[in-house]
Amino acid sequence: MTKGNINVSVENIFPLIKKFLYSDHEIFLRELISNATDATLKLKHLTNIGDAKVEYGDPKIEVKIDKEGKKLHIIDQGLGMTAEEVEKYINQVAFSGAEEFLDKYKDSAKDSGIIGHFGLGFYSAFMVAEKVEIITKSFKDEPAAHWTCDGSPEFTLEPSDKTERGTEIILHIAEDSTEFLEESRISELLLKYNKFMPVSIKFGTKEINDPEHEPATTKDAEGKETTEPHRQITVDNIINNPNPAWTKQPADLKEEDYTGFYRELYPMQFEEPLFHIHLNVDYPFNLTGILYFPKMSNDMQMQKDKIQLYQNQVFVTDNVEGIVPEFLTMLRGVIDSPDIPLNVSRSYLQADGAVKKISSYITRKVADKLKSLFNSNREDFEAKWNDIKIVIEYGMLSEEKFFEKAEAFALYPTVDGKYYTYEELYNKIKANQTDKDDKLVILYASDKEAQHSYIESAKAKGYEVLLLDSPIISHLIQKLESTKENISFARVDGDHINNLIKKDETTISKLDEEQTKSLDELLKEVIPTDKFTVQLEAMDSDESPFTITQPEFMRRMKEMQATGGGGMNMFGNMPEMYNLVVNTNSALVSEILDTKTKKKQERLITQSLDLARLSQGLLKGEELTNFIKRSYEMIK
Amino acid sequence: MTKGNINVSVENIFPLIKKFLYSDHEIFLRELISNATDATLKLKHLTNIGDAKVEYGDPKIEVKIDKEGKKLHIIDQGLGMTAEEVEKYINQVAFSGAEEFLDKYKDSAKDSGIIGHFGLGFYSAFMVAEKVEIITKSFKDEPAAHWTCDGSPEFTLEPSDKTERGTEIILHIAEDSTEFLEESRISELLLKYNKFMPVSIKFGTKEINDPEHEPATTKDAEGKETTEPHRQITVDNIINNPNPAWTKQPADLKEEDYTGFYRELYPMQFEEPLFHIHLNVDYPFNLTGILYFPKMSNDMQMQKDKIQLYQNQVFVTDNVEGIVPEFLTMLRGVIDSPDIPLNVSRSYLQADGAVKKISSYITRKVADKLKSLFNSNREDFEAKWNDIKIVIEYGMLSEEKFFEKAEAFALYPTVDGKYYTYEELYNKIKANQTDKDDKLVILYASDKEAQHSYIESAKAKGYEVLLLDSPIISHLIQKLESTKENISFARVDGDHINNLIKKDETTISKLDEEQTKSLDELLKEVIPTDKFTVQLEAMDSDESPFTITQPEFMRRMKEMQATGGGGMNMFGNMPEMYNLVVNTNSALVSEILDTKTKKKQERLITQSLDLARLSQGLLKGEELTNFIKRSYEMIK
Repeated sequence: MTKGNINVSVENIFPLIKKFLYSDHEIFLRELISNATDATLKLKHLTNIGDAKVEYGDPKIEVKIDKEGKKLHIIDQGLGMTAEEVEKYINQVAFSGAEEFLDKYKDSAKDSGIIGHFGLGFYSAFMVAEKVEIITKSFKDEPAAHWTCDGSPEFTLEPSDKTERGTEIILHIAEDSTEFLEESRISELLLKYNKFMPVSIKFGTKEINDPEHEPATTKDAEGKETTEPHRQITVDNIINNPNPAWTKQPADLKEEDYTGFYRELYPMQFEEPLFHIHLNVDYPFNLTGILYFPKMSNDMQMQKDKIQLYQNQVFVTDNVEGIVPEFLTMLRGVIDSPDIPLNVSRSYLQADGAVKKISSYITRKVADKLKSLFNSNREDFEAKWNDIKIVIEYGMLSEEKFFEKAEAFALYPTVDGKYYTYEELYNKIKANQTDKDDKLVILYASDKEAQHSYIESAKAKGYEVLLLDSPIISHLIQKLESTKENISFARVDGDHINNLIKKDETTISKLDEEQTKSLDELLKEVIPTDKFTVQLEAMDSDESPFTITQPEFMRRMKEMQATGGGGMNMFGNMPEMYNLVVNTNSALVSEILDTKTKKKQERLITQSLDLARLSQGLLKGEELTNFIKRSYEMIK
Repeated sequence: MTKGNINVSVENIFPLIKKFLYSDHEIFLRELISNATDATLKLKHLTNIGDAKVEYGDPKIEVKIDKEGKKLHIIDQGLGMTAEEVEKYINQVAFSGAEEFLDKYKDSAKDSGIIGHFGLGFYSAFMVAEKVEIITKSFKDEPAAHWTCDGSPEFTLEPSDKTERGTEIILHIAEDSTEFLEESRISELLLKYNKFMPVSIKFGTKEINDPEHEPATTKDAEGKETTEPHRQITVDNIINNPNPAWTKQPADLKEEDYTGFYRELYPMQFEEPLFHIHLNVDYPFNLTGILYFPKMSNDMQMQKDKIQLYQNQVFVTDNVEGIVPEFLTMLRGVIDSPDIPLNVSRSYLQADGAVKKISSYITRKVADKLKSLFNSNREDFEAKWNDIKIVIEYGMLSEEKFFEKAEAFALYPTVDGKYYTYEELYNKIKANQTDKDDKLVILYASDKEAQHSYIESAKAKGYEVLLLDSPIISHLIQKLESTKENISFARVDGDHINNLIKKDETTISKLDEEQTKSLDELLKEVIPTDKFTVQLEAMDSDESPFTITQPEFMRRMKEMQATGGGGMNMFGNMPEMYNLVVNTNSALVSEILDTKTKKKQERLITQSLDLARLSQGLLKGEELTNFIKRSYEMIK
């Protein structure tokens, strides 16, 4: 048996890094700026605890493009390196300086926010550069060092005359990566990854009005005032906000700070968020963040993946799938946690205990916030309901815990603009809307306009009609029916209102048996019975003569299937089913029976059927054109 | 100045590989199977050229789960390794065996389809395993070797008694990766990455009816037949198709081979594709593949990203953005090319010359195929038009080259189900639909049902009406108007048909000036003039008394804005604008004027206006309910 050590072949490590380290080459800039931030925060920490006797000052990280020289510079004012440290940290690939530092200063460094794994991140520079230089001067009283490497394993190290503390990295950009010499590209990357990093990042300069100089105003002889122009001065163009709102305490932030931060996050978003939730927990995991409820549309897919995930203020991804419960991926905002494992598969992430806890913490916080908003200002909450209901309803469907908590704030709006909680609704309608079998019937409409005449019939009986128009509402109704006892939901056009809530009352029909029979025969001659099931009912004479209804069960199953019910494909293919309810006590029906000629009878029935179809939105195309022509003639 | 070599610290290389090599750990299986395929194809090549004097046979790769022992085995029957080769290829991380092999057998190996970069891929095993064993026997007459490594840089190497040629990799799956001991998970991965790899992959066994054994049928005394049961045999469960359709020559494939392969690619897809395009080019780049046109719906986003990208039959990704022109990402199928750089940024990809050529090659092939389909079987092409038009129209809008080529096959269907090319349409309507200013007016409808009465009016004049209902059609119309000379498109409900195509004819009004004036005043008292602009026109007496129209320009701008016109936000916020065209020669208008009481006049006008609104789909909610009530009364 042989024993030995695996030998990492250095000749091959550079192509390897270049090819495999990150699939997205643009990451190099994030890595180099993380290192620079690291070096700066380390120095801050050392000065704080007295281990570095230098002035920390107000250090910046500068990014500079030298387009002509095909170079990109990243310059920090952090703790720098001695030649010996360059040997140790740079020449030994994959030796993580940050880890060693954290080991040494374990407790005191814990909160200093040190980010990176120096060493490895540095080598990502070779993904875009054919040659890399490091010029660095330590905060310690030692000479500066100049390291150069052209991507082969050979490097040179020589003294440098750099006098300011800190490290400058110079990338000689390779032929295939010249995009990284474009100001617009670098600016795009800095805004994407470094917008909220904790050290100021300078990229170029800009001209502003000198704030120290107030332009003087002089009067000429005629009393005419002349103001001299503003004096322009050149200042550093700082691209980041080192202290974003989520790193502060909620107590230190005002409402406008939250909306201001929202605008920082989504500069292209014109609408203001409806409200925010500040997340802040440090046990059993570390997590900060701010989530916003935007105005939601009914398109759930389009709104996903707007939440940004950070680790210690470094942007990681905007795919928070698996970390945030699915229904909350429709929110916006920021989550920052060093505790989320990133380089693992999604399925592992979903099984990970810490991540599960994070997910349920976020769900709980969102539910608590909604409850407190509802309790503290119900009017405002009601006004925002339509813009947020899709998230809440989706959450009620997908997370049992959230369903329970939502009992306290989920609202059921009526067509008249009232908003009830379930309990309030129940108490309100119990007396009037319980049918003869003791079942409570909750009436609803999905479209105030399209179902107008049906809503009116229900309201005429003193019933409340809910307006439930979310795309997933049929699923939620199904869930509520199976959770609550002895209730059912019925859409107002599911049947004639007398049949939707059956009471122990009967109206006597004006027609005798023979008349009823001849009416039935007459109707069936004219009405296409493959499309409509004719249903004769004795109702009040002033109720609509003809009404078309669509039975609840089949319609709901079709709707559920269309919005992803799963396994109910059979309903999707069923034809639409409609009933035609004919009021035998209406004057029109009497007139049909009394009319002498068959042709006139048919014309009356056709016109009445067309009017009923109009009510249900079923009269279209050629049939509508014919109806209109016929109606013009009937006017005359 | 110091010179030196960068020292890759081996202690850190394993955590590094584990953390950074691939962000998705599941990739390890693809890598190990690629290596096994590699080893098998190399042996095939060596036996073909006579450098290996062994029987190649029908080698398989076997994947086996040992759930109890927490092990995953990958076993091949390829060329195997001697102890010396293990030292060389395995113990030297990042030493690519495949590259060396290709160097040595450059020309002859070119077409043998050798995939991987042995060495690096192998180490991805440590992403999921805490210990890895290799047991391998070379095809050369040398003893087998057994290598073991627990993820530290230390390994052991000893002789093994393995006698069959080939390599077995044993992964001792780590605690955090036990998902890879689940049969369902491994099966999922094999189907995702290895479904079309060129060597058979065995995963378990299955029972089938013995094809060699025909069950005997016996007759008893009463003549009753009894058939004995099928005999079951156990066979290898091969999960892949090593010779997928795209690797064959089009001449060797029948229509059913293409539909069969489509079903292999999309087993959950029930609908058959409409047609396919076989891609096959080897200069200036290598690319094979088959693209399918599925039935398209109008939702463009939902249909994207179904094309699978392979490299030498190994699945890479289903995101072909940047490789395939955007409008073709709605297609389905497979593209296989070793020439597409993968580990580069998307922006680099889009600027890469080879990739640009691939993209325009695909566009050209698709256009050529469409043209030949149109020419060879126009009837069939017309029948499929509605299912494919969205891709073609989007292509015409986004790729100038495709727009030019599409002239030959882009169709313009009429409401009567005829299909014209632009040239045919032009010749057909030139005589009748050229207006008095010599402009050709192309009439169209967007909805046969909703615009039925307007279509009828146009057809009554002998005009052709196109049916153009794609979501992006307003953009295409705009483009056609600016490309072709002296034409314009007009939707049939944009104005009264006499005004849409103005001829040098005038109809005399029945009304004198005074009557006209009093009609105008009367109408304006009843009709809400903030919603409708009243327009009195002398038309044939049998034409509709009231017609509501919506001017073309504003409507089209709003539509373009809604489907992403960009920069035209102003139109989206404009209110809808409608005209009410009143036919002064209609009998109804005479009746309105003749009616004595104001109340009856108002009733006539209201009812007529409501009928006109019905035609344009504008009568809804309460207004519709009132109209229906009023109409029931007017029947009586």
